[in-house]
Amino acid sequence: MIKTADHLYLQVADNIEQLIEKEVMKIGEKLPSVRILSKQQGISLSTAFQAYYHLESKGLIESRPKSGYYIRFNSRRMPAMPGTCAPVKKASEATVSDMVMEVFSHMRSPNILNFSVATPPVELLPAAKMAKAVVHALRELPANGLGYEELQGNALLRGQIARMSLAWGGAFTADDVVTTSGCMDALTLCLTAVTQPGDTIAIESPAYYGAMQLAESLGLKVLEVPTHPASGVDLDYLDKAIPRHKIKACLFVTNYNNPLGSCMPDKNKKELVGMMEKYDIALIEDDIYGDLYFTKQRPANCKTFDKHGHVLLCNSFSKSLAPGYRVGWTMPGKYKEKVLLMKQNHSIACASLPQAAVGHFLEIGRYEFHLRNLRKMLHTQCLRYSQAISEYFPESTRISRPQGGCVLWIELEASVNTFELFQLALKHKISFCPGRIFSLQNKYSNCLRISFGNPWSKQVDDGLKTLGKLIRKLQQAAV
Amino acid sequence: MIKTADHLYLQVADNIEQLIEKEVMKIGEKLPSVRILSKQQGISLSTAFQAYYHLESKGLIESRPKSGYYIRFNSRRMPAMPGTCAPVKKASEATVSDMVMEVFSHMRSPNILNFSVATPPVELLPAAKMAKAVVHALRELPANGLGYEELQGNALLRGQIARMSLAWGGAFTADDVVTTSGCMDALTLCLTAVTQPGDTIAIESPAYYGAMQLAESLGLKVLEVPTHPASGVDLDYLDKAIPRHKIKACLFVTNYNNPLGSCMPDKNKKELVGMMEKYDIALIEDDIYGDLYFTKQRPANCKTFDKHGHVLLCNSFSKSLAPGYRVGWTMPGKYKEKVLLMKQNHSIACASLPQAAVGHFLEIGRYEFHLRNLRKMLHTQCLRYSQAISEYFPESTRISRPQGGCVLWIELEASVNTFELFQLALKHKISFCPGRIFSLQNKYSNCLRISFGNPWSKQVDDGLKTLGKLIRKLQQAAV
Repeated sequence: MIKTADHLYLQVADNIEQLIEKEVMKIGEKLPSVRILSKQQGISLSTAFQAYYHLESKGLIESRPKSGYYIRFNSRRMPAMPGTCAPVKKASEATVSDMVMEVFSHMRSPNILNFSVATPPVELLPAAKMAKAVVHALRELPANGLGYEELQGNALLRGQIARMSLAWGGAFTADDVVTTSGCMDALTLCLTAVTQPGDTIAIESPAYYGAMQLAESLGLKVLEVPTHPASGVDLDYLDKAIPRHKIKACLFVTNYNNPLGSCMPDKNKKELVGMMEKYDIALIEDDIYGDLYFTKQRPANCKTFDKHGHVLLCNSFSKSLAPGYRVGWTMPGKYKEKVLLMKQNHSIACASLPQAAVGHFLEIGRYEFHLRNLRKMLHTQCLRYSQAISEYFPESTRISRPQGGCVLWIELEASVNTFELFQLALKHKISFCPGRIFSLQNKYSNCLRISFGNPWSKQVDDGLKTLGKLIRKLQQAAV
Repeated sequence: MIKTADHLYLQVADNIEQLIEKEVMKIGEKLPSVRILSKQQGISLSTAFQAYYHLESKGLIESRPKSGYYIRFNSRRMPAMPGTCAPVKKASEATVSDMVMEVFSHMRSPNILNFSVATPPVELLPAAKMAKAVVHALRELPANGLGYEELQGNALLRGQIARMSLAWGGAFTADDVVTTSGCMDALTLCLTAVTQPGDTIAIESPAYYGAMQLAESLGLKVLEVPTHPASGVDLDYLDKAIPRHKIKACLFVTNYNNPLGSCMPDKNKKELVGMMEKYDIALIEDDIYGDLYFTKQRPANCKTFDKHGHVLLCNSFSKSLAPGYRVGWTMPGKYKEKVLLMKQNHSIACASLPQAAVGHFLEIGRYEFHLRNLRKMLHTQCLRYSQAISEYFPESTRISRPQGGCVLWIELEASVNTFELFQLALKHKISFCPGRIFSLQNKYSNCLRISFGNPWSKQVDDGLKTLGKLIRKLQQAAV
């Protein structure tokens, strides 16, 4: 019975999907109500609802409160995906700091339309509920949280983080967790624990500029590994590069990496962990976007498959809950003692109150509840932004297809310099990240990263339209 | 008229002081009430009060609420000061990390009598009032403090820190300040900003083990500079050492340094700044104990005399207000842009809420009020501890005379190994810092650091008595 019903709702959903693809039903159009669909198709109300629910979870339609279901996306119209970069010959020491500083100096300018920050805006975060958690923590902590927290971090929070490991196939305990002041601090401590100045580490290409700047400030060299926009790091290349370049550690964002949005398949994750074991080197796995998945299930981590402690998993609550609280953590595997020593050297302890507040928020189940809503919003926004870009930008534009996170990676014609575009856009009060800052190899000058964190609005729509116009102008000037 | 009155109270006070010194009036004894003193000596009530107030500020007597004045200290009975170490031939790379870890692993054991932490215990800190400041900050901050704070730090807090510079003879603005997550974070950012791995920096000897461990984790070599227990770093030695050892930066605690308690005279501070200018190198000035002075006025900083921005002043509120909040700051002078870049690389921003709460606490004047009480308590405790140690420890014991801060540096006979003493003391549930961890040169094995942060109590008295017995036992065993 259930199975038939299952098939039935899928059949109805498939039919609707085809109608959308063929543009019989157009974006923005209202769909029949659940009641009418049920009558039309001779199916039960719950089957009709299931069909819409399925289409909604695929991002093709959306329900608007007190109004009904609307079509919002047509997958046929999506442009091609960006390409994978060519491998490099040697590790680099250069810097993109000045350009990054330039980009972020405008971040707080008034009235700027900000596509440059890879974090959901605070409007999407539970400010009032977190404030309550802080007040609760003030009451619960000895001396109202005035004293030093223990070196390894707040025990309640560590316990809750350990519980969350179930979702990605882990079975860790509070004792495996070390808290940090945000994810950058976790990366700093882990990198300092597993490398010496002068060592070479492997990162993705393109990679988060923050990782490259951090490596630079610690006196490390970086080798940029070609990375596919869907499946992540090129493992064949990496396997040869580790011995050749004497790689001491890898720093990868395995789920919805920034800026590409790629998510390593489990098979690749296992293979990567195997490689770490083979060469006995460390993988610093930055999973900061892992909880922001648009798929049915949370993706696994490399840490899921880490039997011998080679993986130092790093994460924080900055992308999903409270950027300003600076609460992050690491599960440093067999490097735990070294990481604790670095933490003692660099910071003694993390702030007591924010840790306890986040711990409490998790304990009462609010985090999971919040995440469900946040994921839905980000998924919708991702599709909306993608669609607008495919409509407003030139036809040759390529766009990534992230299945999580909050950024899109966009490749324009080779002739377009996106740093030039950035400066033009600033005059129109629009900010984004030019592709050039995601590599030390003078690459990606024709790419850009657009964050879809801001909820869809007329201002966003107009902003993307303006960007499209500016790109066309630059393209024409180049001809 | 006033002048005579002035002399009068000093005369009376001097007489009392002599009686205490000659042990006519003994420690713990109650003094005549202000009214009786006034009648006895034929002086006004206010002159009698002034005399006691003067003696109290010298630490010789104390007022107990609703009880009267008591004698608490006899300066004649103080043992000699510890010596200055001999200079070293070359910079060292060794480590004391394991020993430090061993010492601090016992810090949180239940029922331990803790003489090892150089921070006043939370009982001396205004927990409830700070909690109120947090609630205020929650209300005032946009999105209840959920969003990222700006890179340079909370503007209110920076403004208040700038105002406080008046007290040490500075005239700085909010724009000169960069906030950090505690003082260790400030030191980390400043060291990373002004050095490269492999460089040599100068530190005091003995020096805070945390500074040595930090240097080690950043791949820096350290040269230990002989330091006098009263006047601080040996400047003649330093002047020769800078070119000889290619020193890239100095990291000194100029006021009430840890563990010696020395405070550089202004003359030396000026000379040190001049030396930095001459060689164009950086001075990272850690002033974490500067606000905990027992003298009439706050001491100046080197930063006070810094005309060309060579001094990176670092401080925090961890020793005086809220260790668990991790709120620190630096005034990095001409290195400000570099420090900001390092802050962006390592942590993006500091936690919003604790910064805003401390800023508010300062703004409403509560910090100054709290500090006045805290200083008085620490001064009393310093004298009480010194006296007990001079009574219970062997006669050959030498004790430092800090005019601020919260630690005593104690030198025992050369035969006594204080790490052995540490392990013995642990069995009696007493913890302190063995001197060996304050140098990389295998020095100070016969020294120890005792924190006088814990208010005086029978438990403290018994603990010091036990330590004295254990020391005698070790001395006898060595004979």
